[in-house]
Amino acid sequence: MSPRRFARLALEDGRRVFAELAEGEARLLSSAPWEGGALTGERLGGVDDEGRSAGTRRLTPATPTKIVCVGRNYRAHASELGNDVPVEPLLFFKPPSSLLDPDGTIELPPSSISGRVDHEAELAVIIGRRTRRATDAEAAAAVFGLTAAGDITARDLQKKDGQWTRAKGMDTFCPVGPVVVSGLPWDALGVRCRVNGALRQDGSTRDLVFSVPALVAYVSQVMTLEPGDLILTGTPAGVGPLVDGDELVIEIDGIGALTARVAAAAAEG
Amino acid sequence: MSPRRFARLALEDGRRVFAELAEGEARLLSSAPWEGGALTGERLGGVDDEGRSAGTRRLTPATPTKIVCVGRNYRAHASELGNDVPVEPLLFFKPPSSLLDPDGTIELPPSSISGRVDHEAELAVIIGRRTRRATDAEAAAAVFGLTAAGDITARDLQKKDGQWTRAKGMDTFCPVGPVVVSGLPWDALGVRCRVNGALRQDGSTRDLVFSVPALVAYVSQVMTLEPGDLILTGTPAGVGPLVDGDELVIEIDGIGALTARVAAAAAEG
Repeated sequence: MSPRRFARLALEDGRRVFAELAEGEARLLSSAPWEGGALTGERLGGVDDEGRSAGTRRLTPATPTKIVCVGRNYRAHASELGNDVPVEPLLFFKPPSSLLDPDGTIELPPSSISGRVDHEAELAVIIGRRTRRATDAEAAAAVFGLTAAGDITARDLQKKDGQWTRAKGMDTFCPVGPVVVSGLPWDALGVRCRVNGALRQDGSTRDLVFSVPALVAYVSQVMTLEPGDLILTGTPAGVGPLVDGDELVIEIDGIGALTARVAAAAAEG
Repeated sequence: MSPRRFARLALEDGRRVFAELAEGEARLLSSAPWEGGALTGERLGGVDDEGRSAGTRRLTPATPTKIVCVGRNYRAHASELGNDVPVEPLLFFKPPSSLLDPDGTIELPPSSISGRVDHEAELAVIIGRRTRRATDAEAAAAVFGLTAAGDITARDLQKKDGQWTRAKGMDTFCPVGPVVVSGLPWDALGVRCRVNGALRQDGSTRDLVFSVPALVAYVSQVMTLEPGDLILTGTPAGVGPLVDGDELVIEIDGIGALTARVAAAAAEG
């Protein structure tokens, strides 16, 4: 079966809808595909396979109840920050309020809060069914599909706070998209990050310390995963700073390019 | 104005509804009060001021998009675990999947995962309006009301993992309720915890290191708070272990008693 591609779109009439992308069309769904969304019969033409079309805007292709992230899941990245690879997956959360639509703007915090914000390009997993205490096989079956994500991180706060809540949890610090792809093998996908066109990260999920099913199974031992929940699988080596005016592109083989601009904080208000 | 009391109830016909409690009645609302829920005219009689009645079941009185928690926010509790009081609030998340209804059962993890699960009784704040970068005055105005919560914690995992995600994030580790009270001053409320009738924690929000408005303002500097979001304000001294068969009661002045049973993990499956 060839992979299937799904987007979430803001339409001109204000509706926000999930759609399957095929043959240059967005075929609207009654709800998210992992919630049993069915084709409504409504179709938009002139849509590319990353969900772009005139008159619509792309949204995060999932609306998770939780976003579970994994630290230090590529050996070379753990090393570059002077850390060992963990014996078990190192989990943390980003809140839903940190989600950023494709083509959105990552807002840097005021310099009084953080002076160093890094990009981290990651493969993200969308859960397809309620899952608790899964075996690796059950975990693999619980994956609906894959997308790209950024685990944007205030590196100075990460070191200072101990808990990574602020460092990882700010508004706009979790760009996700542009589309969700189901039926795509996850074990050897290139994960790249470009800043203003320069290649900064160039890894492969072949080098994940804990595999996609191993992560899903591990998380599900301690918390129930819900359909639409996201798991960010960690970032390869090459993380580095973002500054005002940067253009960030996170690209994953078979999924596409997730882009974001970077802007300094607006004045307080 | 005297405080107003709100519950969320599972009715016999399967509906899950918010209701205002007054004069022995539950007066049903069209949605959560912080989402503009209006009286529908439907009323249930024989309801006490903690939302109990024959034929209904009490639910967590909020359905938050995120649960932000604060560590070491009482001096005596920080000391009992050998920690300093933080210079800034120490934030972490519990996931929505950890929520537990009043009268629910806290499920201890298998002993292969954790051998020590503690109670932490806390005052919790329900946010009433979307809030970002609030001043202390704006933060106070953003509070819809107050409830009781348990920040149940696998103490051994908290020490071992570094990030508190697993330790604090397991299913059933966030009992909340029984009701939300608005218009109740938050600055000198007794916070008590009883296990099998024995008083284990006996504090007062008078001793909070960071006050309710200070916490809301601080969190809102880094992430947008949504209506219905919860902030757990930290626990007073006296934390201790829970074991299979325990009955936990978390009691806050002016709010009521949140009860939970404790049970060892069911067999894997």
